[in-house]
Parts: sequence; structure tokens; C-alpha cells
Amino acid sequence: MGSVVESREWYLAAYSPHGVPNSDNLKLRTVALSLSSDSIPDGHVSLQILFLSVDPYLRTRLTGTLDGLYIQQYPLNEVITAYGVGRVIGSKDSKYTEGDLILTPSAPVAEYCILPSSRVIRKIDAASGISLPDYLSALGVPGFAAWVGIVVLGDPKPGSNVFISAASGAVGMSAGQLAKIRGCRVIGSTGSDEKVKLIKEEFGYDDGFNYNKESDFDAALSKYFPDGIDVYLDNVGGKMLESVLNHVNKYARIPLCGMISQYNKVWTEREGVRNLLNMVGKEVRMEGFMLESYWHRFEDFAKEMEGYIKEGKVTSKNKINIGIESFLDSLASLFSSSNIGKVVVQVNKA
Amino acid sequence: MGSVVESREWYLAAYSPHGVPNSDNLKLRTVALSLSSDSIPDGHVSLQILFLSVDPYLRTRLTGTLDGLYIQQYPLNEVITAYGVGRVIGSKDSKYTEGDLILTPSAPVAEYCILPSSRVIRKIDAASGISLPDYLSALGVPGFAAWVGIVVLGDPKPGSNVFISAASGAVGMSAGQLAKIRGCRVIGSTGSDEKVKLIKEEFGYDDGFNYNKESDFDAALSKYFPDGIDVYLDNVGGKMLESVLNHVNKYARIPLCGMISQYNKVWTEREGVRNLLNMVGKEVRMEGFMLESYWHRFEDFAKEMEGYIKEGKVTSKNKINIGIESFLDSLASLFSSSNIGKVVVQVNKA
Repeated sequence: MGSVVESREWYLAAYSPHGVPNSDNLKLRTVALSLSSDSIPDGHVSLQILFLSVDPYLRTRLTGTLDGLYIQQYPLNEVITAYGVGRVIGSKDSKYTEGDLILTPSAPVAEYCILPSSRVIRKIDAASGISLPDYLSALGVPGFAAWVGIVVLGDPKPGSNVFISAASGAVGMSAGQLAKIRGCRVIGSTGSDEKVKLIKEEFGYDDGFNYNKESDFDAALSKYFPDGIDVYLDNVGGKMLESVLNHVNKYARIPLCGMISQYNKVWTEREGVRNLLNMVGKEVRMEGFMLESYWHRFEDFAKEMEGYIKEGKVTSKNKINIGIESFLDSLASLFSSSNIGKVVVQVNKA
Repeated sequence: MGSVVESREWYLAAYSPHGVPNSDNLKLRTVALSLSSDSIPDGHVSLQILFLSVDPYLRTRLTGTLDGLYIQQYPLNEVITAYGVGRVIGSKDSKYTEGDLILTPSAPVAEYCILPSSRVIRKIDAASGISLPDYLSALGVPGFAAWVGIVVLGDPKPGSNVFISAASGAVGMSAGQLAKIRGCRVIGSTGSDEKVKLIKEEFGYDDGFNYNKESDFDAALSKYFPDGIDVYLDNVGGKMLESVLNHVNKYARIPLCGMISQYNKVWTEREGVRNLLNMVGKEVRMEGFMLESYWHRFEDFAKEMEGYIKEGKVTSKNKINIGIESFLDSLASLFSSSNIGKVVVQVNKA
């Protein structure tokens, strides 16, 4: 490894208040990065980035306002960051040595970087038999979100009727499998017939429907939930959430994981939910969550989920796009209904 | 007491899907009721109704659909029922004797009745020093709703910023005082300058505003909550709830007690809330409640609230309308912004 590398990275050129972010907002540039031992401060590691996790919440860090998820906005002209897997290529922290594989929620969207080792949340056991992309899907941000939503907040009982939107997406695929493990009846909505087939055949959903073919969500939910909905893991918001509120059972729980249908709009143009009054009579609990509040449970999650993966009870479908240059299109694909499963960018060969 | 009395009663002549219920929906009739000992079945008492509680939820039992609060609808042509205080005038249950004062959630909106004694939830101690109308306000349905909303679900800490809508209404007046007892900063919204004065001077609110004078709720909430809102007891729904979601703090709680601004509309015409996405980033918990799920806590509530009333820490303002004939106008007044405090109908002299 030469002491200076050329590293391509995506930086924020302009905020994107609405619409799908494009090449006016995120631009690729090449920087020269010194990775010589002298260039690594104490308590830091140098990394070759291997895989980056492409998640919908990243979009809300590009608006330039705190509206929405209230996550800190990326600063202009700086490289953006994401959850990722890296290989240690140099270390000024005795806990890490060259060749270690690590996970960090704060990987620069770049080919190489120098990172404070405090940002490393986990060393990956290369002998675990689990693929590196799975550490970003079932064992990463979306798997953890599914676990918090289903296990911690939704807490369905055996036989509960569980509905999951964006069911073939990165969160939905793990969420459906977790609900099945708990003995629930699980129905998903997703954006194509192919994806409906997928969630039934690969992720164990009892049934599902293509929301693009349903002109009347209320009618669809009446059909798939003759006994009502006990838990709805909401990943989309808007009209689907409104329709669900017409089908909730007493004491239903609605963990709000994200609202992908609403991210690209300013709030005044988002779809209003008109039937919140139903929450009163049905005594529904709706609760938003962000993973930052649940990191203290990450080890519980990881242990449980690794067990399921090794037993073959949870599987992931990962869409791996090759090369750092694919990051922007990968992000845009989350909003186009074109992708299936977890979108990952492979930056360097593992 | 003659063995047959003429008893006037309000019955449901036609459902009222929207708008304020009127004399086409509820009609007064006179029935002859035998109160002789032979006419009282075992396990029943005959009552002279003294006071009836006029509450917004009654309106949702008149729509003819389960939409909204999902409470059982009143049957057509039958006398409607409400929470009330009665005096026992005859008894076929050894627990009750002539002259006892009792509380029941199922009093016919009538001058006299025969009631299963299982419907009696409490015998009133005439020597308690608490006025009978207070048993329907701070110690009745609205006081219990305030207690569940603030104490059980809102659970604010000393110094928390608490917002209460319909603050001068029956629930709001007790809720504000309960939040102050817990050491919170409490702000209310209400429909006139006179009511703003009232909540500050009589119910201990730190401040309040007249929503009819605020063209921009967001601006008003910015002014009154420079540090954001920790607990919002929602009694109105619609635009005010939407504005609150632009001012919530992390982990805010929103107990949904009712949505009086929305009851007179079919759901598709209710005001949509467009910014539920804020609940994700702020990790807000919104939870509807109905008192039927909390009756097991009624004694806890009653004991605590009686203590506050006797210590002078909680006071009620009751609007007492005289005569069974005033019931319909009393119900309509809940939706006109004209009333203050708890609306009670005095049916017979106490």
C-alpha cells in the first residue's frame, strides 16, 4: 500500500429540499490521502472501505432543514457518511491491526479514510460464515430497525395479525421473518408482482399485495385482514398509514420506522392522515423510533439475529452495486420502486 | 312517591352522521313508569335522576356508524344514556336503600328509571363536602380522562412543558391542575379571551392563548413553547395536532383524549395531519385512550382526586343547565365554543 492513495468520495454540493437527490446535490471527486503511519493520529485507524449501506434515512440528511427525521444535516462540501464495512490497513489503536474487518456507522462514502477508532462499533469475525453484505442488511441498520420495530415496540403475540409495508425492502424482509418466528400471521405490501412472489417465497410472508395494482387500499386491507390489524410496521406513511387506521384492532401498535413515500416532499405537501380519531376509540399506540436511542440493545439484537441467520431462519436478499461511483444511483433507486432487498455498494474487493 | 310517574326522556329518533345533532335526531317524550315495588326486578333499583354529565363522546354514539371512537351506537327509538347521579327511591338490592345517592355510567337521559344495580359504580358519601356536580366533573368522566391522560400516559416530569387544548373544557380544567401539581409548566389553548383569563386565574395555567385569534398556530406555539413541547394532551385533533407536531421535543408524548374539532365530520372530510414523519425523528409516542380500559384504576384516581379537591388544589367550574328539556341544547353547546368548564344537566332537585 503506497503512503498516498487517490480516493474517490461523494460530497454534498447542494442541499436537495425535495425530489430525488441528483448529481447537482451529490458529486464525486478525487482526493489524495496520505495513509503513512505519520498521517494517522493516535486512536485512529486507516481503512479501505469495502461495503457501504444505502439506507432511506440518508436522504433526510440532504434536505438542508431539520424537518422530518431531525437528523443532523450533512455539511456542504464535505464527504457524506454512511454505515459501512472497512478493512483496517493501518492502526494507531492497539485493539485493531492490519487486516481486521470492522463495522462503523460513520464510514465516509469514499474508497479510503482515516477514522477515529471510537467510531468502530464491532470487529467482524471473518470465520462466522456470514457474508459481509449481510452485516449491512439483516445484521445492520435495516435488520436492527426491523428488530426494534417488531420485537421491542410492536411486540406481537402468536397469532397476531401483522402488516408490513415496503415488505421487500431492506427493513421489510427482516421484519417479516422476525414476525413469523414469533408465530404471527404476516402480510406485506410491496410495489410489484415479482416482489410479492419474493416475500412469500423467500421471506416467509403468509401473503402480500402489489400496492400499484390496488386502487383502493381500504378494500385490499379488508381482504387481507378480515380479523383486523394488530401490529403495523410503517415504512411508508401517507395513504397506506391512513388506510391501516381504518382496519386497526383494539390496542393495535404502529411502530413508525420511516416514511419513504414522504421523504421527497416538503411537509406541507405530504399526504395528510385524516382518521387519527380512530386511534382514540381503538386505543392505538403509534410510536416513532430512531436507532440512535436503541444502540444499548444492539448486542442483544446482534446475538439473536446471528442465531437466526446461522439456523437459516432469516435470510437477506442484497442488491450489490459495484464501485463507489454507483452510490448516487443506488440512493436514487430506493425511491424508484426498482430495487429489491438491501442495497449495498461494494467499494473495494473484499 | 306514587307508584306510576310521568318521566320525560330523550330518545334517538334518527342518526346524525355529521353536523351538530338537533331536534330531528334527539326528541323528548313522556313515558309512564311504574315504580311500585312489584315493578322493580330483583337486583335492580329505581332512581330519581338528579344530574347528568354532558360529554363530547356522546356525540360519537349518534352517528350510526362505528367510525371514529368505535363506541357502540345508541339504538334507534330507545332512550339514550349518560353518566349521572341518581337518588335511590326503591331497591331490590340489599346494598342500596331509599335516599342513597349513587353514580352510574349508564343513567338513562330521563327523569326516572329502573336500573340494574350492577350498573352502579359508586355510592356517594353525602357528608364528603363535595358538591354533586363535582362528581360528574373533576371526579367524573372528564376528571378521570384528565388523570389517565396526564398521570398515566403523559407522565410529565417536574419542569416538563405541557400543552393542553380545549383547556377551559371539562377535561382541560382538571388536566391543567394535575400537570401543575406535578410541577410542570402548563400552557392551554381555548376559544376566547375570557376563557384564557379563566384558565390562568382559576385553573393555575401558566399561560394560554385564544386559538380564534391566532391565524398561525405554529407561530403561537413558537412563542409559548420556546423550549418545545414534552406532553400534549390532545382534545381537539386536526390543525392544532398538526402544529404541535412541528414543536415536539424528543420522546414527546401525545395522549389522544378526543378530537372535538373532528366529531361532526365524516372521516374523509376531517383535517389531514401531514407531518406525522416528525414522530419518527423525534421518537414521539401518540396513544389514544378510552376510559373503559382504565376502570380498574378508577379507585386510585378517585382517592387521589378527592384529596386534591379537599385540599383546594383542584377546583371545577360547572355550567348547570336546569331541567331534562335542556339536554339537547347542552350537548350542542359543547361544539359551539360557548360553554366553559363542565356542562351538567340538573334533572331534579338534589
